[in-house]
Amino acid sequence: MASYRAPLRDMRFVLYELMNGESLASLPGYEEFTRDLIDPILEEAAKVCEQVLHPLNRSGDEEGCTLENGEVRTPKGFREAYTTFREGGWTAIACDPTYGGQGLPKSVNVLVEEMICAANLSFGMYPGLSHGAYVSVHGHGDDALKDLYLPKLVDGTWAGTMCLTEPHCGTDLGLLRTKAQPRGDGSYSLTGTKIFISAGEHDLTENIVHLVLARLPDAPKGIKGISLFLVPKFIPNPDGSLGARNGVSCGAIEHKMGIKASATCVMNFDDAQGWLVGEPHKGMRAMFAMMNTERLSVGIQGLGLAEASYQGAVTYARERLQGRALTGAKHPDKPADPLLVHPDVRRMLLIQRATNEGCRALAAWTAHQLDLQNHHPDPAVRQEAEDFVALMTPIVKALMTDLGFEATNLGVQVFGGHGYIREHGMEQYVRDCRIAQIYEGTNGIQALDLVGRKLAANAGRSLRRFFHPVSAFLEAKGEDEAMAELVQPLAKAFVRLQQATAQVARAGLANPDEAGAAATDYLRLFGLVALGYLWARMAEVALAHEGDDPDGFYRAKVATARFYMDKILPQTGALFSSLMAGAGSVMGFEEEAF
Amino acid sequence: MASYRAPLRDMRFVLYELMNGESLASLPGYEEFTRDLIDPILEEAAKVCEQVLHPLNRSGDEEGCTLENGEVRTPKGFREAYTTFREGGWTAIACDPTYGGQGLPKSVNVLVEEMICAANLSFGMYPGLSHGAYVSVHGHGDDALKDLYLPKLVDGTWAGTMCLTEPHCGTDLGLLRTKAQPRGDGSYSLTGTKIFISAGEHDLTENIVHLVLARLPDAPKGIKGISLFLVPKFIPNPDGSLGARNGVSCGAIEHKMGIKASATCVMNFDDAQGWLVGEPHKGMRAMFAMMNTERLSVGIQGLGLAEASYQGAVTYARERLQGRALTGAKHPDKPADPLLVHPDVRRMLLIQRATNEGCRALAAWTAHQLDLQNHHPDPAVRQEAEDFVALMTPIVKALMTDLGFEATNLGVQVFGGHGYIREHGMEQYVRDCRIAQIYEGTNGIQALDLVGRKLAANAGRSLRRFFHPVSAFLEAKGEDEAMAELVQPLAKAFVRLQQATAQVARAGLANPDEAGAAATDYLRLFGLVALGYLWARMAEVALAHEGDDPDGFYRAKVATARFYMDKILPQTGALFSSLMAGAGSVMGFEEEAF
Repeated sequence: MASYRAPLRDMRFVLYELMNGESLASLPGYEEFTRDLIDPILEEAAKVCEQVLHPLNRSGDEEGCTLENGEVRTPKGFREAYTTFREGGWTAIACDPTYGGQGLPKSVNVLVEEMICAANLSFGMYPGLSHGAYVSVHGHGDDALKDLYLPKLVDGTWAGTMCLTEPHCGTDLGLLRTKAQPRGDGSYSLTGTKIFISAGEHDLTENIVHLVLARLPDAPKGIKGISLFLVPKFIPNPDGSLGARNGVSCGAIEHKMGIKASATCVMNFDDAQGWLVGEPHKGMRAMFAMMNTERLSVGIQGLGLAEASYQGAVTYARERLQGRALTGAKHPDKPADPLLVHPDVRRMLLIQRATNEGCRALAAWTAHQLDLQNHHPDPAVRQEAEDFVALMTPIVKALMTDLGFEATNLGVQVFGGHGYIREHGMEQYVRDCRIAQIYEGTNGIQALDLVGRKLAANAGRSLRRFFHPVSAFLEAKGEDEAMAELVQPLAKAFVRLQQATAQVARAGLANPDEAGAAATDYLRLFGLVALGYLWARMAEVALAHEGDDPDGFYRAKVATARFYMDKILPQTGALFSSLMAGAGSVMGFEEEAF
Repeated sequence: MASYRAPLRDMRFVLYELMNGESLASLPGYEEFTRDLIDPILEEAAKVCEQVLHPLNRSGDEEGCTLENGEVRTPKGFREAYTTFREGGWTAIACDPTYGGQGLPKSVNVLVEEMICAANLSFGMYPGLSHGAYVSVHGHGDDALKDLYLPKLVDGTWAGTMCLTEPHCGTDLGLLRTKAQPRGDGSYSLTGTKIFISAGEHDLTENIVHLVLARLPDAPKGIKGISLFLVPKFIPNPDGSLGARNGVSCGAIEHKMGIKASATCVMNFDDAQGWLVGEPHKGMRAMFAMMNTERLSVGIQGLGLAEASYQGAVTYARERLQGRALTGAKHPDKPADPLLVHPDVRRMLLIQRATNEGCRALAAWTAHQLDLQNHHPDPAVRQEAEDFVALMTPIVKALMTDLGFEATNLGVQVFGGHGYIREHGMEQYVRDCRIAQIYEGTNGIQALDLVGRKLAANAGRSLRRFFHPVSAFLEAKGEDEAMAELVQPLAKAFVRLQQATAQVARAGLANPDEAGAAATDYLRLFGLVALGYLWARMAEVALAHEGDDPDGFYRAKVATARFYMDKILPQTGALFSSLMAGAGSVMGFEEEAF
């Protein structure tokens, strides 16, 4: 199996050199997060991911989860790994210190998340879902709920889930049917069936806290009649010890394409006792707070898997001797040259590299803005950051999972037939990554969110949070000769994005189907321009290190930026043409003719 | 599980209306293949694929093959299905009547192949490999070998394999080590290990005939020292009855991402008796004859799976109610509108449709030329057809499997979370399709074949077999107003292809790495232009049926052509830019920096 090493050098680059991570400590609440605290955290995270989680990735995929008498057994080694993970404090890093968390900046946490996803995405699902539940309760629960549940979710002795989907509704939650009846004691009785519940049942923790969307008896129809409830597997006593088993059970687990070691459960709620989280009928709002952080995390899943795939592919391309360089043998002493001499193999590896490092920078930028949104003393700065994060969330989710899927497939392709064999683990990255394009809102839904909500939000104010820095950068660098080969293609792509934005806004206003048909092209165009901007900025940082670059790290940055501009950014032209062609051929096709 | 219906209407369209299939009967040897013979063959093939093969597709994937004491058991039902298939004469359709075959034109056979791949690719591998062995023996074996083996391969009582790959060499067969020693009786003793041998061992037939690449003792090094041998599992007596077990055995079967019901074997040859096929040291030539037909077949695998995926996705998009049309509820009486109202869902379905029907036309065109190559009385026509087929083979293989993989993934995406669940069969199409981009020469190798061999072949004569008809068509349609919306984008893309061709030829001559780095972009650019040309031609045929189109078939053709030009062909612009940027950023990246 391909091994995984956390790309700490590049992580430190985006954190400290691109995003000025050392300034984090100047934000209220982050005072202690200086570099000498952050660096050891990253190194420890790398260790646990490389040594504890990654060795279970392949075996977890082979074994999968099993359901017997309503109990789910995770694959061999997962329980022990979870204990190590929990005892190491990793469930607590991104949580509020009030409840035992470590309050790690998001800028650092995204890096840890990437390592976990790269090492073992299935494993990462369990603490990931717990964190989603934590966010919902922390953001919307009352003090009693918070005091009782949060310390356990934070220290990882209890896990959590998000129960949204039902058999007849996924994207369209307005259709959901699960019912909540008041029990007269301030709690509710929930009845209904939820599907696709990740970590719905498992053997990693003593209790599982379900966050469940359901309808109260007086609920308005549709999306405005949904409330959020907390339903524990075991009802805790006031002291936190476990009380009675609640009426919630796992009816089945799904057999899936990938993330096989993550239990995806059908959950039956049968007169289960639950507590309201937030206000009645305002469940979607509470859920969206959670969903936005989750969407960033899902984007990072794509990146993590793509990074793991890249590492495997590079190792193979160095070791596998096959064929000779087109320009003549490079290693005449060996029976053949390594794959790495072949231009088409390099092309694949460089696509992986350029999209991975670009996405890492994009995640870092978004996380940095999240830190500003949550911790900056100036409300104007907080607002700007919030606008930026809202705008970029669908892009991070969809772009990074689409590019991640493409990258994991390139990793298989570099391996040839050996990539298709399960043994090497390369095809697992593809299967595991595929779900990330679907869950937490399909990538098509992300695109609609971008064109339908985010573009128009606050009269385009959000949009300016991206457009302004790019414009300013292009202006500042217009005369910079060393940067010209990067700035010129970026400027061209940026014009396309500006024109496409105007077109989508104008045409979409007249006919929403125009925006709908353009959405996916537009999101990718936007995302590729964002990566282009980040590549230009990374190259700018790297160019300042000429002559001070013993291991060639900065030279490689500039070279990858060049590759991105040459070989990937041109896609924006095709996306622009497709988008400008409008919705006619999409909507004009007769329904019966499909 | 999604059901599959053979797309007979569209198959007849490409065969008779686009490619003038009724003229086949004017070719010597094809006299009997008039429409009233062909149509029932297609209908019977559809029946066996829909009713016998497709019902075993999902169960075959779940169960896979098992190896016990050197014997491979295929999944439940495969033996019975194979008997039905064989008794129906389906193993014989594309074979020489001299040996019991039915001599079906390739133009018809590709359609049957598509149905088999769509219905059950794993099953199709067994007769598919047998046919590869048949082609090799038929083309290069002496009369004794042909008389003894071909009737059994044709009637399907024996199966065949192609044994090329070894653990240390796949693409680079020059490295292979399997040895063949003369035994003094005209036969040879083979010793060595082959891997990735599809259908290497199974329980469908009483005997298996391995076609094996090996080295004779006096063989020159590398690719010019490889000979082809026939090694049967049981050595037949002169009357065709089975004699002694030969020294060939299955050491292991691979656990793979997909095509799990197809046994992929490690085959050990231990003093196995074999017979030379063709001349000593000329094995690669014999193998390439087989490989070229196989490459077309692999392209068709991509198409078949993509068609099956499209059908599943359309059915789901009609049935699944989720959300409301962006322009207001289309079915206010129902709890939600069907997915089909959503522009982004339509976009995905139309990409599938446009690439599938385009690829079907491309396969039909190539098959038609193969029929001319093999049966036309005029040697000049035969030569032209041969040039065309040689040129298009790598494009058919790589383009159709790449587009097929993209299409099967879109099928999953239309299903959302339900697509990721094994139950619906949509994710299986993705896993099964993934291998088609790899085997019979990875798609990167196809691209190198195109730019390295086919472009330059015969001073560009092959190239003109494609360029001339496209030029002529564009010229003829330049003033046709009804066609303008299709012809104009095609003309633009064709100019890109011409310029890219000149660039690849020129730069590649100076530096082979330039051609190597451009190869994948170039192949796709070429392929998309080819589909664009075929879409314009299909629309031309369809437009002639205005007012004579009761079920809207022709209207849908024109509408799909429009979609192709609007939304897919623009990719040629991005490919052109990437290609014109040259190899600098690919080859300039330092080896150590990966």
